[in-house]
Amino acid sequence: MAVDLSPTPDVAELVERTTTFVRDVVIPLEERHGGVARTEDVRTELQRAAKDAGVFAPHVSHRYGGHGLDMRGRAAVFEAAGYSLFGPLALNIAAPDEGNMHMLEAIATEEQQERYLRPLATGEVRSCFAMTEPAPGAGSDPNALATVAEREEGGWRINGHKWFITGADGAAYAICMARTSGTGGGAGATMFLVDADNPGMRLVRHIDTLDESLYGGHLEVLFEDCRVPDDAVLGEVDEGFRYAQVRLGPARMTHCMRWLGIARRSQDIAVARAAEREAFGSRLGELGMVQQMIADNEIDIAASRGLITQACWELDQGRSAAQSTAMAKTFCAEAIWRVVDRSLQICGSLGVSGDVLLSRFLREVRPFRIYDGPSETHRWSIARRVLRRHDTEARR
Amino acid sequence: MAVDLSPTPDVAELVERTTTFVRDVVIPLEERHGGVARTEDVRTELQRAAKDAGVFAPHVSHRYGGHGLDMRGRAAVFEAAGYSLFGPLALNIAAPDEGNMHMLEAIATEEQQERYLRPLATGEVRSCFAMTEPAPGAGSDPNALATVAEREEGGWRINGHKWFITGADGAAYAICMARTSGTGGGAGATMFLVDADNPGMRLVRHIDTLDESLYGGHLEVLFEDCRVPDDAVLGEVDEGFRYAQVRLGPARMTHCMRWLGIARRSQDIAVARAAEREAFGSRLGELGMVQQMIADNEIDIAASRGLITQACWELDQGRSAAQSTAMAKTFCAEAIWRVVDRSLQICGSLGVSGDVLLSRFLREVRPFRIYDGPSETHRWSIARRVLRRHDTEARR
Amino acid sequence: MAVDLSPTPDVAELVERTTTFVRDVVIPLEERHGGVARTEDVRTELQRAAKDAGVFAPHVSHRYGGHGLDMRGRAAVFEAAGYSLFGPLALNIAAPDEGNMHMLEAIATEEQQERYLRPLATGEVRSCFAMTEPAPGAGSDPNALATVAEREEGGWRINGHKWFITGADGAAYAICMARTSGTGGGAGATMFLVDADNPGMRLVRHIDTLDESLYGGHLEVLFEDCRVPDDAVLGEVDEGFRYAQVRLGPARMTHCMRWLGIARRSQDIAVARAAEREAFGSRLGELGMVQQMIADNEIDIAASRGLITQACWELDQGRSAAQSTAMAKTFCAEAIWRVVDRSLQICGSLGVSGDVLLSRFLREVRPFRIYDGPSETHRWSIARRVLRRHDTEARR
Amino acid sequence: MAVDLSPTPDVAELVERTTTFVRDVVIPLEERHGGVARTEDVRTELQRAAKDAGVFAPHVSHRYGGHGLDMRGRAAVFEAAGYSLFGPLALNIAAPDEGNMHMLEAIATEEQQERYLRPLATGEVRSCFAMTEPAPGAGSDPNALATVAEREEGGWRINGHKWFITGADGAAYAICMARTSGTGGGAGATMFLVDADNPGMRLVRHIDTLDESLYGGHLEVLFEDCRVPDDAVLGEVDEGFRYAQVRLGPARMTHCMRWLGIARRSQDIAVARAAEREAFGSRLGELGMVQQMIADNEIDIAASRGLITQACWELDQGRSAAQSTAMAKTFCAEAIWRVVDRSLQICGSLGVSGDVLLSRFLREVRPFRIYDGPSETHRWSIARRVLRRHDTEARR
Repeated sequence: MAVDLSPTPDVAELVERTTTFVRDVVIPLEERHGGVARTEDVRTELQRAAKDAGVFAPHVSHRYGGHGLDMRGRAAVFEAAGYSLFGPLALNIAAPDEGNMHMLEAIATEEQQERYLRPLATGEVRSCFAMTEPAPGAGSDPNALATVAEREEGGWRINGHKWFITGADGAAYAICMARTSGTGGGAGATMFLVDADNPGMRLVRHIDTLDESLYGGHLEVLFEDCRVPDDAVLGEVDEGFRYAQVRLGPARMTHCMRWLGIARRSQDIAVARAAEREAFGSRLGELGMVQQMIADNEIDIAASRGLITQACWELDQGRSAAQSTAMAKTFCAEAIWRVVDRSLQICGSLGVSGDVLLSRFLREVRPFRIYDGPSETHRWSIARRVLRRHDTEARR
Repeated sequence: MAVDLSPTPDVAELVERTTTFVRDVVIPLEERHGGVARTEDVRTELQRAAKDAGVFAPHVSHRYGGHGLDMRGRAAVFEAAGYSLFGPLALNIAAPDEGNMHMLEAIATEEQQERYLRPLATGEVRSCFAMTEPAPGAGSDPNALATVAEREEGGWRINGHKWFITGADGAAYAICMARTSGTGGGAGATMFLVDADNPGMRLVRHIDTLDESLYGGHLEVLFEDCRVPDDAVLGEVDEGFRYAQVRLGPARMTHCMRWLGIARRSQDIAVARAAEREAFGSRLGELGMVQQMIADNEIDIAASRGLITQACWELDQGRSAAQSTAMAKTFCAEAIWRVVDRSLQICGSLGVSGDVLLSRFLREVRPFRIYDGPSETHRWSIARRVLRRHDTEARR
Repeated sequence: MAVDLSPTPDVAELVERTTTFVRDVVIPLEERHGGVARTEDVRTELQRAAKDAGVFAPHVSHRYGGHGLDMRGRAAVFEAAGYSLFGPLALNIAAPDEGNMHMLEAIATEEQQERYLRPLATGEVRSCFAMTEPAPGAGSDPNALATVAEREEGGWRINGHKWFITGADGAAYAICMARTSGTGGGAGATMFLVDADNPGMRLVRHIDTLDESLYGGHLEVLFEDCRVPDDAVLGEVDEGFRYAQVRLGPARMTHCMRWLGIARRSQDIAVARAAEREAFGSRLGELGMVQQMIADNEIDIAASRGLITQACWELDQGRSAAQSTAMAKTFCAEAIWRVVDRSLQICGSLGVSGDVLLSRFLREVRPFRIYDGPSETHRWSIARRVLRRHDTEARR
Repeated sequence: MAVDLSPTPDVAELVERTTTFVRDVVIPLEERHGGVARTEDVRTELQRAAKDAGVFAPHVSHRYGGHGLDMRGRAAVFEAAGYSLFGPLALNIAAPDEGNMHMLEAIATEEQQERYLRPLATGEVRSCFAMTEPAPGAGSDPNALATVAEREEGGWRINGHKWFITGADGAAYAICMARTSGTGGGAGATMFLVDADNPGMRLVRHIDTLDESLYGGHLEVLFEDCRVPDDAVLGEVDEGFRYAQVRLGPARMTHCMRWLGIARRSQDIAVARAAEREAFGSRLGELGMVQQMIADNEIDIAASRGLITQACWELDQGRSAAQSTAMAKTFCAEAIWRVVDRSLQICGSLGVSGDVLLSRFLREVRPFRIYDGPSETHRWSIARRVLRRHDTEARR
């Protein structure tokens, strides 16, 4: 037992297979579609190919057909998959399905797993996670949760307004978060499994967003007297906020892993350009300011990976990892953004054109500084934990 | 004579009229079209309204129906117009027409002015400026100019490949830059007026770019044995690089002015949001990290304006202003980008949605750090001038 | 009347004389003393030379022997003087005397001016400004003012604890700020002229600080039953906070002007080094990353100057200029710091050695981001004004 | 075998002991001396106490009385020791002795180890490393090495001019790097052990520097016909550049480890202040801009540690780790600087005063962005390796 950064042989092998698969199969498709998959055909083709390549569902337990990777294993494989915008969809590790699978494995009953997790794990269906609400509801402050579920004969009735519900269009079901007791900071919330054909759940519109690559879009969704039976409750009543944390910590990290792949891809595109393009009498890559951008990219990527590793290791130890996931998420969201931005800058006019995918990447990674908690909210929580630590130590 | 920052009464009055016009007439149209004008109907409607409001063509001399503003006057009025993406189009001060008018007034013959400038100044036609070439041609390094014009009986024959030719689709003519003598740093270039119906000029494709608001798009254009008569020469043969400078200094500044308007608009959207949205028990604008972003926006806007003022004042004095325009362009391109980025961050999910125009603005201003010379090229030229100044002083 | 950035001929001429004086007389002395003047001999020698050169007391009215410059004139001359750490002392425009003269001219009675201002303006004596208090007193939050003055027969009795009282050692008198009515935000404060030989005022210690160049040091001062007569009141009773603003706005700007001189000096040292030193086969100044630092220095200097100009112009118009001085102070403090830091970096090991004055400059400018209000406090006030402006406009 | 970040029990225990020792014994002494040890008394007292506490010489092999830690073990222990400026001196792991011990263990002969390493490992003597030269010699570009050693009867004669030779005053010997064949990039260099009493080695002066805490100062040293016998050669003739790399990789990392301790200390001082100080009606730590600084410190510290871990792990695997040590050094030098700077800012006036050690820390860590290769040189080498990697892969 000592500090060791080498992956297990299984993971190393899966990373290599994923890398090859992404390069040979996924990227050609991604480039043909400009990075945005809009039809089930594409999804089906990608996932069939991933199954053939033996890289499908790396995070799901063997029982449901996956590779059973822990967070550290995911870190390496998801980054390799994230090297293409289409990689996560191909491996069935895209948001929000990937996080939902993680949560369903952790808290769903046997029956719920068979009915909801199994088809999700195989790629047969998709799902969504209905938590975020427009102002003044639950945005960066989850305590503002305004959607309410009231108990009634044999079940519950949900009313509320959600938005930015990723993947809702085409999802077979939603996991919906609603207040079931109390108010404000002391409220209890509960998660419900709501089938897409429930007449009380209505997709209002696709929200037009800067990013477009998350399959199924970001939707506005209304729950209007939406009735669900008792066995639609996921886990315990009133424990929703706690479960949200179970989902959020790892989900934050898997976002980082996937986008780190895009950062590496951006750097590779920029480096290839810097190596080949001549300007002012030498190749671009020999100009100091370009070298500075390349070096800073390299450092940002390495530092991001280091923070992800730390957080994943803590999660795998069964620790809450609230501080390390918050730090990793905050840093990665900003560092990855910088990497894509610099890479685009290195490529000049070509970089803002559709001839390379960099401007697509720029659009996709920008919201990551907002989704899953804006950087400001994370910084606030990080500082609060530091101060609490100080207070505890000072009191001793 | 002493330092004075107040505009002349004429300019002040025009700014106010422009501000009202933009708020009442332009923005409603802009928001209806999501910031991208795609048809002549929109352009015609906007320009008719601007004429009615008495704010059309502020930069053109009285002779051609404009207000005859100098650079300092433009600074104030263009910023007010730039407050909407549609403002510059409405006032007929959008790139590249605005820069072309400036140059045609400065170097075209009487006949050329009547034929090319007059209809441009009234908005009857549009134009384009065909200088930039794909690698390894003239990009950030103009000396790499690869398009060639050869003298032939009664005129010239132009061959070359251009790209990122803004506004080319629908333009009545192009001002094309071609090498007419020498090679490398010692080359002579010449500008040619090429009518759009010249069979030797071919629009190859619209380049798909991150930004989309510049009317007429960015095009790839081929000149293939493109014949033009002698009177198509703009100014003197072999003086093209010098004229490009005539155009570039002011053009850099007018870009800054217009985008500064967008920066102010972004800040106003963010401040409105911060004033109204509640989170964590107080309105957003009372949270320190939000205040920091608002303050930094305010500072970036003020500093940008200061640098523009300095450069415009120098230009109006007849000075080359190469250093001050390069500094203003570099700073503004980055500061404006920061302002839009922070404003979007303040608005959170709303900011990345199409419900406000911030993500549109983000897409529009990003290329400004590349167009008209990437920041790295400007920094290189700024440093070289500083070093040359040192060398000169040291030699004394 | 139109935007004009050229100084008046008088100011231009004074700037030139100051520049020559600093280069020929001041810098040799500064370098000999490593940038820190510790004795009256040095001060006397510098001020005598400044009088001989006709550049002494440029900000003081003619009546008291000065040049009577307005804020815009000071901007140019103070920057020229600030090119050396010894320049402000030489011209008698160093903090806190310069700000005290400004305030005494504005609010002192005729008698007080004769007794306190005249000898200060000639350099015969020095003064200090006793406002700042250690926590939990008046630091960045002036409302926390804890020093109290109580009325008694024929005068006042002051009790309180001050620190960071610049120049107190050797000062002929202090202007002391004390609470005279109310508490918290609604308190009234009064300024008192306290002679140095008043037994109730005691210099406790020199505070050892990162910066060392402000003549007379930063002291901890105690007022213990310090009795002063009624005519020691400066201006009106309970109007101290308002007067502090009278002093603070301009004082903020003059700090910026002087430190901007140091920024320019740092850049000149770095550029000289970059021009002469060879590394990796070319001179330093040809390396891209060095050029980037040189360019960023140049931009930071120009942007700082632009913001100072804006604020000074507003002050000269009789406006409060609270927003523009806060923005200028915040930006300049950080920009100047960056310039010195980059210049030092360009010089490498030489830069951290005492063989050039850069590490001295670094130490001197760092506290400027804290003194006269930390950047965070200014940002907070800037944002609050922006929000208030929004609220006012929204209410219409 | 899988990713694991927990230290071995031995290391964990040593870290804990070191932490206690630093807190209880070292910091009181450090604060009494303002962070600068100037006499052998202090050094002796510190090292005796470290021996008593069982934490002395953790990096030296058991054979020479140390704990035999590998790089990963050092990472944890050195950071704990670096929490005080006096910690490294106490544990005998300060620069340059620590790096010299590392190198002597790696390449010295048995006899050389007994004579030079053993007394150094026990703290009996100190040493220095004479490599850096003033311009135009070996600074950031080692190929510019100007010091020459010429073979003569029975040994060598060294001539050259060195500066920034840390710890030279009082050192028992120097390891001197001199050119022994060829010129420019193809030159061969050799390392020589030169006793302090060698009449050919002369200490010219202490260089006055921004930092002052490295025991024995930074000196200018002249080698004038300095004669050394054949057995003064360390390792092989002409292999000096390779050995320098052996020393530099790990030495870069141990600098990072030690300064990371200072970053943590700075953060702790700032957090304590933020927790206790009230301003604007709440404690400092509840203000958003202060929270942002605290959070960014926490992230910078965590990211630095992650990069150090990566590099140390590679070094322990016997890899060259040139890229990972360069990235870690570049990032850490800048991140640690930011942490100290922000911590000082949080403390306001107190932060720039000598009442806390933050301004001392600021002075000490600034040169780290220059020493051991300026950030610009590292970025250049990082980018070059990335480009070379690209070229290699592209060629396949």
